[in-house]
Amino acid sequence: MGKLYMITALAGGVGAAKLIDGLSSIVPPEKLTIIVNTGDDCEFYGLHISPDVDIITYTLAGLVDEEKGWGIKNDTFNCLDMLRLYGYDTWFKLGDKDLATHIHRTMMLKSGYKLSEVTRDICAKLRIKQKIIPMTDDYFATKIKTDRDTLHFQEYLVKRGSVDVVRDIIYDGAEVAKPAPGVIESIMDAEIIIICPSNPLVSIGTILAIKGVRQALKGAKAKKVAVSPIIGGTVVKGPADKMMKYLGMEVSALGVAKLYSDFLDIFVIDEVDAPLAHEVEKLGIKAVITNTLMRTREDRIRLAKFVLDIAST
Amino acid sequence: MGKLYMITALAGGVGAAKLIDGLSSIVPPEKLTIIVNTGDDCEFYGLHISPDVDIITYTLAGLVDEEKGWGIKNDTFNCLDMLRLYGYDTWFKLGDKDLATHIHRTMMLKSGYKLSEVTRDICAKLRIKQKIIPMTDDYFATKIKTDRDTLHFQEYLVKRGSVDVVRDIIYDGAEVAKPAPGVIESIMDAEIIIICPSNPLVSIGTILAIKGVRQALKGAKAKKVAVSPIIGGTVVKGPADKMMKYLGMEVSALGVAKLYSDFLDIFVIDEVDAPLAHEVEKLGIKAVITNTLMRTREDRIRLAKFVLDIAST
Repeated sequence: MGKLYMITALAGGVGAAKLIDGLSSIVPPEKLTIIVNTGDDCEFYGLHISPDVDIITYTLAGLVDEEKGWGIKNDTFNCLDMLRLYGYDTWFKLGDKDLATHIHRTMMLKSGYKLSEVTRDICAKLRIKQKIIPMTDDYFATKIKTDRDTLHFQEYLVKRGSVDVVRDIIYDGAEVAKPAPGVIESIMDAEIIIICPSNPLVSIGTILAIKGVRQALKGAKAKKVAVSPIIGGTVVKGPADKMMKYLGMEVSALGVAKLYSDFLDIFVIDEVDAPLAHEVEKLGIKAVITNTLMRTREDRIRLAKFVLDIAST
Repeated sequence: MGKLYMITALAGGVGAAKLIDGLSSIVPPEKLTIIVNTGDDCEFYGLHISPDVDIITYTLAGLVDEEKGWGIKNDTFNCLDMLRLYGYDTWFKLGDKDLATHIHRTMMLKSGYKLSEVTRDICAKLRIKQKIIPMTDDYFATKIKTDRDTLHFQEYLVKRGSVDVVRDIIYDGAEVAKPAPGVIESIMDAEIIIICPSNPLVSIGTILAIKGVRQALKGAKAKKVAVSPIIGGTVVKGPADKMMKYLGMEVSALGVAKLYSDFLDIFVIDEVDAPLAHEVEKLGIKAVITNTLMRTREDRIRLAKFVLDIAST
């Protein structure tokens, strides 16, 4: 890694944040741009919440609750407890410190600022030097069609604990949502593009569903590397495996590779998935094998280094 | 106190809450209506805050921070700390539990409910059986004209610590604000009306400034009793004495009595103000003397009993 490359990462929540954390410890901040999923964005108590943007932001600010992977460390939940007393649904766990972010975001949005501008402001206030860009400033809601009803993704994930049979994923707003300023540019200008180990359907898939993003990835000069979120047919966190199964996809690193095959150069798969390497390469994607589990901070840095080494050779 | 009287109290914040607390322990809840000042209402972070209504509500719910007299006991201030990080003014001390009340109120107001309806809902959720009515559902803002500028009352009181010279008090909105539903009725139906020991200018004065309230008090059949907030020429809490001085009023129980002389029957003054009794009676008001300081819960109950005894004989 003699040369310092311009890096753009596509990210969802917790899994992505771990790799981004690893990257941030070895890449100068001005070289790192993160495009973040906003399909999970939701409104509670009149406040606009951007769960994935917050996870990435809090992680880079050193504020994240490492135990949970989201929220702010040492936060309290007193406001939520009281809201429960007032009769509100409180299944979405908003901490008291965390609430300040949503209050601030909502105030700025109501004043006419775009989500990308709000995100820039929050980054400045939290002294984050990397560039975090929400995938779009426009309405975009990931919805899950189950056997009984259609749920906002957060309802499916948090309220119902992702137990429902998934019949379809709806990218509500995808037809009109434009990429936020900087999204296409950071893809086109990057020398390395990293697809983080996030849910390929509702974290990365949503970003890819934004008009022009997939085309930009295909045309970008950068080396495009993805890290598989599926290890040995299962996920570290989240419902990606269940969703892929219900939608008739192969629940494996290979299944993920197929979703990225039109633009991906390199796919990083776990050692346990070494037998799949050959099939991945048949898709025209170079498969590389390493330990992709990120249990410790050292794991994150090691995997980030591995990804950069692979991408720059 | 053989008979159970219908009681209506006019109230501001902390001083009023103490007497209301005393009253609530000896009066059946369905017999007690409290009309509360909303001139201090303000907006922070997009949230509608009703400081005096909350003090009364939290007190009757047994939630109030007894030490401070306002806010919720054992509350934390984590959201506020984080809002400070985002660059907000945080001189108005909003606790995390307290925030839930403002979030709930704001949600309901935005849905089209009136402040009096919101207050009723909050009382129901907090299992308060007394009737709390904000003085008006309309815009009403108490403003303080100082030597340099015109401040919202909360700015004058909390942000500036009430150090400014007060040139005038402006009841912004008084010309159009209508009494909330139940305000006039509860005055007309009461058998005893209690003017709590609150600031006569910015807590009681605001209620009296609402169209029809003063007239209703004059015409009401009830025995009207006030407790002086001024003891020995000074106040227990708040800037009433300073404000009266700057506005050229006599800073004493007598000065307060003069403000209520057109409707008041009985004025309860402290033992230290016994020499003023004669002057008060010259206003056509019966002066009664007792220890009016409420340091303990027993003091509150004793004073409440005294007031009811005096009013019902």
